[in-house]
Amino acid sequence: MTQPHLSFGPGTEFDTVRAMLARWGSTAQGAGDDGALLDVPAGRQLVVSTDTVVEDVHFRRGWITSEEIAYRAGAAAISDLAAMGAEPLAMTIALTLPDAWRDQSMALADGIGAIARTCGMPIVGGDLSSGRELSIGVTVLGTVEPGGALTRAGAVAGQALWVTGSLGSSRLAVQAFERGLQPSATHRERFVHPEPRLREARWLAAHGATAAIDISDGVASDAAHVAAASRVSLTLHLDLLPLAPGASPVEAARSGEEYELLVAAPASLDAAAFERAFGVPLTRVGEVEAAGSAGAGVDTRLGDEHVPLPRGHDHFAR
Amino acid sequence: MTQPHLSFGPGTEFDTVRAMLARWGSTAQGAGDDGALLDVPAGRQLVVSTDTVVEDVHFRRGWITSEEIAYRAGAAAISDLAAMGAEPLAMTIALTLPDAWRDQSMALADGIGAIARTCGMPIVGGDLSSGRELSIGVTVLGTVEPGGALTRAGAVAGQALWVTGSLGSSRLAVQAFERGLQPSATHRERFVHPEPRLREARWLAAHGATAAIDISDGVASDAAHVAAASRVSLTLHLDLLPLAPGASPVEAARSGEEYELLVAAPASLDAAAFERAFGVPLTRVGEVEAAGSAGAGVDTRLGDEHVPLPRGHDHFAR
Repeated sequence: MTQPHLSFGPGTEFDTVRAMLARWGSTAQGAGDDGALLDVPAGRQLVVSTDTVVEDVHFRRGWITSEEIAYRAGAAAISDLAAMGAEPLAMTIALTLPDAWRDQSMALADGIGAIARTCGMPIVGGDLSSGRELSIGVTVLGTVEPGGALTRAGAVAGQALWVTGSLGSSRLAVQAFERGLQPSATHRERFVHPEPRLREARWLAAHGATAAIDISDGVASDAAHVAAASRVSLTLHLDLLPLAPGASPVEAARSGEEYELLVAAPASLDAAAFERAFGVPLTRVGEVEAAGSAGAGVDTRLGDEHVPLPRGHDHFAR
Repeated sequence: MTQPHLSFGPGTEFDTVRAMLARWGSTAQGAGDDGALLDVPAGRQLVVSTDTVVEDVHFRRGWITSEEIAYRAGAAAISDLAAMGAEPLAMTIALTLPDAWRDQSMALADGIGAIARTCGMPIVGGDLSSGRELSIGVTVLGTVEPGGALTRAGAVAGQALWVTGSLGSSRLAVQAFERGLQPSATHRERFVHPEPRLREARWLAAHGATAAIDISDGVASDAAHVAAASRVSLTLHLDLLPLAPGASPVEAARSGEEYELLVAAPASLDAAAFERAFGVPLTRVGEVEAAGSAGAGVDTRLGDEHVPLPRGHDHFAR
C-alpha cells in the first residue's frame, strides 16, 4: 500500500485528500489504515516532537505564499529532530482548513510535500478538518543511537558554543513585512525556506558535540534553556555571532525562528571541514563553564561589556 | 528528567504548561527537550496515528464539560491504536487554546490526563498555542509484532464479522443535545467516556482476528472501508447488531464515534470467553465472502431484506 493513513473530518472532501496524496507521490507512504505501520531500525531509540502553527499567531496570510507557510511549518517541526541529532523516520500532518483557505489546499500540500521530500521524511498519516482558522500541526519521528541524542542537558564545562549558518534574517524579514515592505531577497529566502540542519547535526554529534538546541526563540534565549538543562554557565559573545547581511549583533541574538543550531562541542572542532561538507558556516560564539555561585545562566557579552540578555523572539501577532 | 517536551507558543504561559504537567504527574514523561526520546521494544513495529478535534466541528461548547471534551479527543485517537491491535507506547498533545477557553485549561488537562492514564499512554510531548478556536490534536504511538497488526485489508472470505460492546449511544446522545435535552445517563456516559478497546483488540488478534476498524463513521460505513481494503463482500445483519438501550438497528448502524471495534475473525470465536475477560459483549453480526461479480462492498440486511446502506455518521456542525 502506498497511501498514508489520512482520516477525513467533516466538511472536508475525500477529493482534497486524494489530490494531496497525488501531489505528494512517493513521499506519501503508509498503511492507509487506522494507523500507519513503521519499521524502526533495530537498536535505535525513537525521537518524537510535535509543532503547530496557527493563522495570525505564527503567520499572517498575505506575507508569504501558502506553499511557503506550509514549508516553514514542516521545517520548524523537522528542525526539532535536527536539534536532537536524529535521523528522519516519518511525519504526520494535522491540517485544519477553513473554507477561506480551501482554494489553497494544493499549495499547502505542495509546501509540506517539498520540505518532506527535501528532508527524506515520508508523510505516513494525517488528519484533515474544517475550522475557522488555518492550523498546520506536524508531528515528526526520528531515530538516534541509544545515548547518542544531542540534548539540551548535554553541555559540559570546557566545551565551546558553536552556531551553524548565520542569524538575523528571520527578524529582519518580519520587520519588513510588519512595515508593509518586502524583505531583501536573501532575508526573504531564509525566512520562507529555513533548512533543518539534520545532516549537520549528525556530523556535529560524530565530532564530539553533546548538546544542541534549534534557534527558535533567539540564540540568547535558547542558550538559557541549555544553561538551565545542563546546569552550566554559558558565555555568549555577541560580537562573534555570524550575522546575516545588515543584521546587528543584538538583532542576530534576538532573531527567532532561525532554525539554525546552537551546539556545545569541543573547542577543537574543525569548522573548515564542516563548511566544506555542507557549504554552511560553523562559528564559535562562546564557552561553557561550570555554574558559578550565581547558578546556571547565560552571560551575554559585547566585547568586554556585559549586556543584558536580549529578550527572545517577538512573535508577530497578539 | 520527568518532564515531557512541551514547546510554548506565543500568547501562552509557561505557567499553564507547568500546571498541566503537575496535574499529569507521572503520566507526563520524556526528555524536556526539542524532542522526546522513547525506547521501542526490540523487534516491534511502530504504529502512529493522528487525530484532531476542532470546536464547532467535532464538538460544541456547553454540551459536555471541558474535561469530557478532552477525554473524548484522547479516546478517539487512542481508539485508532486499538483498531490496529497495538500496545500503547506514548502520545503527544497539540493544544490550541483561545483566550475564551483559558480558564478551562486545567479541566482540559485533566481530561487528557485521565484517558492517558486509563490507557497507560505516557504524554511525552506537546505544543500549546493561542488561537481563535479550541483545537485538540493528539498523536498516538503504539507497537505491534511485525505482521501482527489488525488492518482494514486483512478480512478473508469465510470469516465472520464481530462487533464489541453495543452501538447507538453516541447518536442518541447527540440527538438529545441537538434538541437541547440531556441524554439518558447511559448514553451520556458512553458518549463522554468512550473506551478504546486496546486489550480487547489484542485478545481478538490472539484468537484469530485478522482485520479491524474502529467504529467512527457508523458500523455500516466503516464496514465499507474494510470491504474495499480487503476486496471482499461483507454481509452485515442489522438485526444482529448489539443495541444500546432505545436504539433501533438502523440508528445503531448509523451511529458514529462509537469507538467500538468491527473485526473479521473466525466464526468459531469464543464470545463468552471474551465477555468473561473484559465484561464487554462480543457479537457476531455478519459474514465475509469473496467479492462477487459486483465487486467488493457491503450488503446490509434486515432479516431477509436488503436495505440501502445507511449513510455514515452525521457530524453535528456545518
